[in-house]
Amino acid sequence: MCRWIAYRGETIPLEEYVTAPAHSLVVQSQRALESTASTNGDGFGMGWYGEHPEPGLYREVRPAWSDENLRYLCRHIRSHLYFAHVRASTGTPTMRPNCHPFACGRWLFMHNGAIGNWSRLRRRVEALIPDAIYGSRIGTTDSEAVFLAILGAGGDRDPIGATARVLMQLTDMVSDHHHKEALRFTAALANGRDLYAFRYAANDNANSLYYRESAGSVVIVSEPLDSNRDHWKAVPAGHMVIARANQAVELEPFPAAQRIAAE
Amino acid sequence: MCRWIAYRGETIPLEEYVTAPAHSLVVQSQRALESTASTNGDGFGMGWYGEHPEPGLYREVRPAWSDENLRYLCRHIRSHLYFAHVRASTGTPTMRPNCHPFACGRWLFMHNGAIGNWSRLRRRVEALIPDAIYGSRIGTTDSEAVFLAILGAGGDRDPIGATARVLMQLTDMVSDHHHKEALRFTAALANGRDLYAFRYAANDNANSLYYRESAGSVVIVSEPLDSNRDHWKAVPAGHMVIARANQAVELEPFPAAQRIAAE
Amino acid sequence: MCRWIAYRGETIPLEEYVTAPAHSLVVQSQRALESTASTNGDGFGMGWYGEHPEPGLYREVRPAWSDENLRYLCRHIRSHLYFAHVRASTGTPTMRPNCHPFACGRWLFMHNGAIGNWSRLRRRVEALIPDAIYGSRIGTTDSEAVFLAILGAGGDRDPIGATARVLMQLTDMVSDHHHKEALRFTAALANGRDLYAFRYAANDNANSLYYRESAGSVVIVSEPLDSNRDHWKAVPAGHMVIARANQAVELEPFPAAQRIAAE
Amino acid sequence: MCRWIAYRGETIPLEEYVTAPAHSLVVQSQRALESTASTNGDGFGMGWYGEHPEPGLYREVRPAWSDENLRYLCRHIRSHLYFAHVRASTGTPTMRPNCHPFACGRWLFMHNGAIGNWSRLRRRVEALIPDAIYGSRIGTTDSEAVFLAILGAGGDRDPIGATARVLMQLTDMVSDHHHKEALRFTAALANGRDLYAFRYAANDNANSLYYRESAGSVVIVSEPLDSNRDHWKAVPAGHMVIARANQAVELEPFPAAQRIAAE
Repeated sequence: MCRWIAYRGETIPLEEYVTAPAHSLVVQSQRALESTASTNGDGFGMGWYGEHPEPGLYREVRPAWSDENLRYLCRHIRSHLYFAHVRASTGTPTMRPNCHPFACGRWLFMHNGAIGNWSRLRRRVEALIPDAIYGSRIGTTDSEAVFLAILGAGGDRDPIGATARVLMQLTDMVSDHHHKEALRFTAALANGRDLYAFRYAANDNANSLYYRESAGSVVIVSEPLDSNRDHWKAVPAGHMVIARANQAVELEPFPAAQRIAAE
Repeated sequence: MCRWIAYRGETIPLEEYVTAPAHSLVVQSQRALESTASTNGDGFGMGWYGEHPEPGLYREVRPAWSDENLRYLCRHIRSHLYFAHVRASTGTPTMRPNCHPFACGRWLFMHNGAIGNWSRLRRRVEALIPDAIYGSRIGTTDSEAVFLAILGAGGDRDPIGATARVLMQLTDMVSDHHHKEALRFTAALANGRDLYAFRYAANDNANSLYYRESAGSVVIVSEPLDSNRDHWKAVPAGHMVIARANQAVELEPFPAAQRIAAE
Repeated sequence: MCRWIAYRGETIPLEEYVTAPAHSLVVQSQRALESTASTNGDGFGMGWYGEHPEPGLYREVRPAWSDENLRYLCRHIRSHLYFAHVRASTGTPTMRPNCHPFACGRWLFMHNGAIGNWSRLRRRVEALIPDAIYGSRIGTTDSEAVFLAILGAGGDRDPIGATARVLMQLTDMVSDHHHKEALRFTAALANGRDLYAFRYAANDNANSLYYRESAGSVVIVSEPLDSNRDHWKAVPAGHMVIARANQAVELEPFPAAQRIAAE
Repeated sequence: MCRWIAYRGETIPLEEYVTAPAHSLVVQSQRALESTASTNGDGFGMGWYGEHPEPGLYREVRPAWSDENLRYLCRHIRSHLYFAHVRASTGTPTMRPNCHPFACGRWLFMHNGAIGNWSRLRRRVEALIPDAIYGSRIGTTDSEAVFLAILGAGGDRDPIGATARVLMQLTDMVSDHHHKEALRFTAALANGRDLYAFRYAANDNANSLYYRESAGSVVIVSEPLDSNRDHWKAVPAGHMVIARANQAVELEPFPAAQRIAAE
């Protein structure tokens, strides 16, 4: 189980949420509280948007807490929309292309969770990725495969709809007659303007998700960055946070969860 | 283009061929002579057989010439059959699971070459890997995919036949009406007892391969380890070296090449 | 605070103590029990003696729990005397030359603890290393400096006496009129035949140390490798374990502790 | 022998000199032309100034040509004064704290060359570093020691004078009655406003250095970044380039060289 944060708002140095808070993401890499894995030391990564049309990416296999570069980069890189992630592997190797976030074109994605029994489902999930996008699969994680499947399902034009369609397919895969496998999908998706975060699960409890709004900015996190629980709103399971540029933050039901509930 | 060595014979420390010779594999990592890439600095690896039923493996993303561990391991690990490889990537990322050799069960494999236009062929080659073996695909290289396809084609029982069958399929893939893509396959395969090395290409020249026999041992190399060219025999294109336990080393035509030639 | 194991006895694969036990050293790298740092993820290392006159060494900056090479090496490397160590840095960078064990000539050394306020004492401790040995200082830790100081104090001929002399000097350094700084030295030293382990501290509690003897072999550990506390004997603070080739294991007072106690 | 570039001028993305030119620094990491080491694959680094009072730093042990992060960082980080360096080790280990540039307070430094027989001189050069600065010595290179010695000699107030004083001391060390050792010092120093580059040697030829000026900006390089030799001015041995904020670039004799020549 991993830990992550996503931010959209005024342009700030990455350090403001990655390294500075009392219970910052880097602190969580060594001592997470709301996670089954207390150590998130299987690599980490950051993705951010700046002046270049495509996002920046920094991923490393060493634990976040001991990476000398991270402190410097977090001080110097400023962004209006960024992701950071510390990884606890669920089985795939610790290598940079398996670290989150993943980038494809102008999109960034990161994930906390697991897609059923990956060794059983891997080929079926990889088959959801269209040929034109398959060349962007440079790692071997379930998370990257789901991201590319979402883009293949029309994520660029309809990110919520495409995510819901893929998650419904995945829910079917983990719920056939013979197997009930856990699908946990607490994830963030962004295109440089708009930020989406999802909290969903099938056959299991959904991994935790919180957000905090203030004037013009929102930070969405696996677990609160400080002990002041008043600012942090828990996202209910089966819901999503929508933080579009120049619009109020919205908390809404996630369509995949609604469809499943309706059945 | 990579460089490799394979050894079968009396039990010796790995250093005897990896680090000690004048033009050792580690020297070749910085200054190869018969290669289009003079630097082979995109990771390296060693595989060897000892008392455990499965081979040992040491792979690292740093260049071989600067790895402090390599010198110690080569001094201390002794083996009767071992592989070593320095990598010059043809495009896939530099990460440990993409370094050669690859291990699966009791088998080891390493490769110098390229399988056509990999981004075009990747899915078709991966489709050659049976489901039961697909879980062993932990990297993203063409080489690992071909290895697992060979095992899937019956390589455990019939290594030469399975390799030939897969290479004929690959030759067809790189030679359709619209595309003529280069397939270069200079590779080694072993099971702890027997060692096979292949020099084959389609639509291009085959990458170099040499071997040197002495009382009871054979060393097979991408390029000679010293300037005494008398001991080193060049393997002709379309041929293979067979070095089975307790048998004389044989140089024979590679069946895939014969089939193609016959057409 | 780090965790380590040292073994002397019949030749066995390293895995027998490094990776196999219920509470193996690799498990301790993620979840140590008797340590202030529950995570020991700032690199790790192994040192062992084989047929080569100098020991082998494998050190890596990634956490032990995620290193693919470690499992293979522990299966295949066999030794009659070996060390393994997982590191929790007390401030010096995570780089291979700062990982334990350290090797110099035929000697190996590893350490759990801290030498006072290292930034204040560093120059004085480095000054204890004779010029002839200073070239072996390839890292920047307090531990490596103490090791080389011990060799410089005659450790090759008189390992216990030299260790005691250096520790008395260090005890003086951390105990002057103005400062009382913690010195914790739970360490192992070996030359390929004989193994010494020390549990000592000044101005603080000594870090834990246990050992287990069985027919002809001894394993010395930071914390027990299984929950059967009956086999594990705690080494009292101010004591050392002496495991010389072909001699019974001895538990004796450490001379530095006796001198200090006598004052 | 290493390769480096230094830039001062308008704020631009780092990629403009690190990755984009025909013979960019990353290309030089694999194929330098004016260097005895054609491969500079023993780590690399970048340092830059932005809005934070201290410079940013990114250093990595992998070769520059295969680092996925480098391309993203060079696109996204913008600076008015930055350094980049690819390393060919002269003997000290490949670890991040041994990669250039080095940072201390607001200063950055990088070096191409060697300080005599380092194993003989190391202690004497380290002794030039005052206690107050010795805590900033986190690596083991000759280059970092010279940098800290320069700061210790008053580099913050008088960078040219302090550099000259230290280089005169080093010149004496490599030129005593019994030894004539090569001292090569082609180096850059900056404080966020002003940039200094030196080309100096004793007992050997000085390593190459060039610069190119255009409206308001200067780039200083080990070797030209393109084949248009007209823009590139060679810096003569024993000279320095001074590029102070809001002042014309000056080429002047380096005082250390003048003192030596006068003797």
